[in-house]
Amino acid sequence: MASDLFESSDSLRTGRPLRHARTFALPGPLPLELGEELQGVTVTYETYGRLNEARDNAVLICHALSGDSHVARHTADDDPGWWDLVVGPGLSIDTDRYFVICANALGGCRGTTGPNSLNPATGKIYGADFPTITTGDIVEVQRLLLDHLGIDRLLAVVGGSMGGQQALTWAVRHPERVAGTVAIATSARLTTQALAFDVVGRNAIQRDPDFRGGRYLSENTTPAVGLALARMLGHITYLSPEAMRQKFGADRLRPRELATMFEKRFSVGSYLAYQGDKFVERFDANSYIRLSLAMDLFDLGETLEALSENLGRSRCRWLILSFTSDWLFPPGQSQDLVRALIARNKPVSYCNIASSCGHDAFLLPDELPVYGGFMRAFLQNLRGASGPTEEEDAVDADAPTSIFGALRHPRIDYNQIVRLIPRAASVLDLGCGRGSLLVRLREEGNRKLVGLEINEEDVLRCLERGFDVIQADLNSGLEIFSDAQFDCVVLSHTLQAIRDVELLVSEMLRVGRRSIVSFPNFAYHKLRRMLQEEGKAPISSGLLRHEWYNTPNIRFLSIADFEDFCRDHHITIHKRIALDTEEGRVVTEDANLMADMALFVISR
Amino acid sequence: MASDLFESSDSLRTGRPLRHARTFALPGPLPLELGEELQGVTVTYETYGRLNEARDNAVLICHALSGDSHVARHTADDDPGWWDLVVGPGLSIDTDRYFVICANALGGCRGTTGPNSLNPATGKIYGADFPTITTGDIVEVQRLLLDHLGIDRLLAVVGGSMGGQQALTWAVRHPERVAGTVAIATSARLTTQALAFDVVGRNAIQRDPDFRGGRYLSENTTPAVGLALARMLGHITYLSPEAMRQKFGADRLRPRELATMFEKRFSVGSYLAYQGDKFVERFDANSYIRLSLAMDLFDLGETLEALSENLGRSRCRWLILSFTSDWLFPPGQSQDLVRALIARNKPVSYCNIASSCGHDAFLLPDELPVYGGFMRAFLQNLRGASGPTEEEDAVDADAPTSIFGALRHPRIDYNQIVRLIPRAASVLDLGCGRGSLLVRLREEGNRKLVGLEINEEDVLRCLERGFDVIQADLNSGLEIFSDAQFDCVVLSHTLQAIRDVELLVSEMLRVGRRSIVSFPNFAYHKLRRMLQEEGKAPISSGLLRHEWYNTPNIRFLSIADFEDFCRDHHITIHKRIALDTEEGRVVTEDANLMADMALFVISR
Repeated sequence: MASDLFESSDSLRTGRPLRHARTFALPGPLPLELGEELQGVTVTYETYGRLNEARDNAVLICHALSGDSHVARHTADDDPGWWDLVVGPGLSIDTDRYFVICANALGGCRGTTGPNSLNPATGKIYGADFPTITTGDIVEVQRLLLDHLGIDRLLAVVGGSMGGQQALTWAVRHPERVAGTVAIATSARLTTQALAFDVVGRNAIQRDPDFRGGRYLSENTTPAVGLALARMLGHITYLSPEAMRQKFGADRLRPRELATMFEKRFSVGSYLAYQGDKFVERFDANSYIRLSLAMDLFDLGETLEALSENLGRSRCRWLILSFTSDWLFPPGQSQDLVRALIARNKPVSYCNIASSCGHDAFLLPDELPVYGGFMRAFLQNLRGASGPTEEEDAVDADAPTSIFGALRHPRIDYNQIVRLIPRAASVLDLGCGRGSLLVRLREEGNRKLVGLEINEEDVLRCLERGFDVIQADLNSGLEIFSDAQFDCVVLSHTLQAIRDVELLVSEMLRVGRRSIVSFPNFAYHKLRRMLQEEGKAPISSGLLRHEWYNTPNIRFLSIADFEDFCRDHHITIHKRIALDTEEGRVVTEDANLMADMALFVISR
Repeated sequence: MASDLFESSDSLRTGRPLRHARTFALPGPLPLELGEELQGVTVTYETYGRLNEARDNAVLICHALSGDSHVARHTADDDPGWWDLVVGPGLSIDTDRYFVICANALGGCRGTTGPNSLNPATGKIYGADFPTITTGDIVEVQRLLLDHLGIDRLLAVVGGSMGGQQALTWAVRHPERVAGTVAIATSARLTTQALAFDVVGRNAIQRDPDFRGGRYLSENTTPAVGLALARMLGHITYLSPEAMRQKFGADRLRPRELATMFEKRFSVGSYLAYQGDKFVERFDANSYIRLSLAMDLFDLGETLEALSENLGRSRCRWLILSFTSDWLFPPGQSQDLVRALIARNKPVSYCNIASSCGHDAFLLPDELPVYGGFMRAFLQNLRGASGPTEEEDAVDADAPTSIFGALRHPRIDYNQIVRLIPRAASVLDLGCGRGSLLVRLREEGNRKLVGLEINEEDVLRCLERGFDVIQADLNSGLEIFSDAQFDCVVLSHTLQAIRDVELLVSEMLRVGRRSIVSFPNFAYHKLRRMLQEEGKAPISSGLLRHEWYNTPNIRFLSIADFEDFCRDHHITIHKRIALDTEEGRVVTEDANLMADMALFVISR
């Protein structure tokens, strides 16, 4: 087992002093959501980069359960930060451009007032007397800090896991103060499973005899066993099963030699013991209980309705990121956030990033190019710095979009589609690829544009081009969208690759007032002739350039077939445009024979 | 929250006396695998039904971690058994037919010698002095019990979870004494994640100050907190996230009123507290540690090679069952068992049963018709009681197998296939459906037949017909099979529905010495004419009876296309048979035009 395994999952240093931290004392008492009031609260925070003159380049980063304000190194010889991968000059959250703020959470144990602070009313450490706090309270302290720093509006608030819950809270509670929200590996409420793990962890701490009802500091004990058990449990949930197998599967019976009071029999056991012991050295049990309870109490709504009601208050752009192997905050929960935001027509981009790293993925280098790239592009979009470049469009135009892939009359289909869509219309482009149709529509003046795409790289590319884009599989339907949410839904050259055609078309008709569908015409005379004369599956240099056994096209339909389909399914055809993409012209007669492509405008 | 939630997941009664249990004292000392020896071991067990004269109807059931010998009620007024759903007169494990034996595990706390038994050497309770035991030791005690009962050979050994590990051990250690093995929701070794949970559970117990190094009984304490924490953790792992959400998601903040020392804030918290407290009343902490460690140490091999080596010793038929939502013993681990067995040509059937119940599924009624049905059929097969009925074959023959679905000449393709396969050949039928081709081959005298099918009901149907059948998705390849494992691999009327044709055909050629592929010919003259004259996707009353938008057929190929494919991929065509299924004849001339179906015999 490589020695760095024991370090890598725990991105925090042991409890060294925060050399670059500053402190701010709240001017008055802090009323808490659940009813009490805290006196003499101080906030410990760090900043990176410079606030610009317009004071509009501030990015607030919210740390996770065991994090702190030291998000990154300030200098080369500084202690490592927990997000050195992401925050720094030239990095995804670029401290040359942005003024980054990170504050220790209220209730924590790294400087901001928490259970191990002195209670001014008694002159003793709070300990058990520290009240139950909420995510809202943590955010309220951050808000007062921003007031103190003279920042009216954040360019963005960014957080993962518990930090993501704070980011969500910012967007909902202070919509006027947030231009963009980045919520990573988080959710509107914990899963019952995650909640259950927290309960077991707290029970382990609270029932440790050395916990002394929370008064362990004044009684000179430490609930080391309970806190270590809670941390061990946490570590299991931060890693994916696959990551655990890779780290500890092969040398299962070869634990590392450790001085620990815990079981030393298995290699994964020595890892957990190490993480548990180390955590006890640097974290406070009462803080752990307060912060984990704040996470458990966080709840923006169980139902879509409740969640939409809450998220509907936001007025920012959104970036939601999840990781495929995260089972503590499973991707479905991020998708619930996306669904609720879309229900309120909020601008949101989303990607479920392929990763085997589990919940910890956003702290690790493995998927950094992806999640870092998303954050970088999103922040740039917030500053209005994005847009397409000609070079990229040229590359994009190479993709064949007609049966014979003729480049003599490129994008004749796009010309037609763009003409069919009013400038004020909101448009959803299904299977938007790298956004070439969206770019065309934006050039025409359309502003309410959303793309949907399955490919991770293409999704990122669309975001970089400034679009709101959702990663999703068309074959799963469009359930994240509401009825009649868009003026126009476009399915361009994709119908023939769809498994459940009836589902998707019915979903398009539900979500869009009008839908535009384009597809290659399988009954085009040249294709008919191929089967008739050669007795082989038709093939061409363009869309049908694949072989019968590896083509992405799995549905073969003609214009006549689609018309039958519409008739049988009571779908109204408003317009049909048949194209000869080889000649670059509209076909008006004998379309099912003479057109290699067709566009339909339909509705229910 | 319904009150029965608190009962349902824990299928065990509290520690009432086992009224119907008998006891057997081992005649000599028991040498343990890890080196020590136990004196004066007694086994507590229960039996159901009657041993027949041939003494060949005995079924040994191995219980899970917290189970006991009371697998089912003996009488209507008896205490409930933990598998009353499955074991009893007329049930899946039918006590009218089989003699069922269930023994308490060595190291447990329900009668068989364990840590809370008296140590004859000292006259005191073993406690901490009870040695570390292995699954092999548990099985050895069961073996001595069978000797005592005069049973040379078990019809079957059946077990789920920890019981499944014992069943695997039986098959490997005592191949001559087991005719069939049923391994449910189990694995050859725990996942690292499952191992990690066990480590945390044991740490909670061992570091509870009341554990007293295991001497708690003699010091009149109980490590109640630690044991309860371990049990809480266990309960989380037994349920799927989805099941937890359903049970505790909606009323998250409404816990049940309980007298407990644990946190009572959330509904799932009160459930865990209840399960933890209840477990402490009926289970012994030292037993928990010994049994969970036995599970952790169980290891039939990390690699396929090691696992095959071990499972290769077995001489029984196998039934492996997993559940889709089981994350403690994930289905991939059962598939590893299947892969290792197949690598040694062992007769095995497998199904990954669709369930949202998690690891506990095999104890719950939800999927009982499926897992119970599999066990019933498997046991019947072991007694040679199965086979096809005419009625079933008639129903099966209705499925269209030619383009035009002509019934005038049914199964003309099967006639050809059966003729092509030597009687002694081993055959793998891919996409075997309900087994109609397998039945034909068996009628011809073929004995080495294996089916592969994705549909759960069809898999069960094949097992009921007496075949070994593996549930798998053809689109995932045939990686569970070794090179050249079968004389013949058949893909009958399925090629046109395959997504990754190149992968599957290449896999067939790897696994079979010869492969037979049959498919509808898309260039059949009637189909050509449809596209040519009507300009629509060809459709028919048979195989192509679906519409273009909902057909399972996604690959359209002709005889000529397939020949090109073979040429381009360096595949040898040994034989081609073209059929006119409408006329019921072999087509010898102009096949690509005149045949509606073709069969190819190919190899690499």
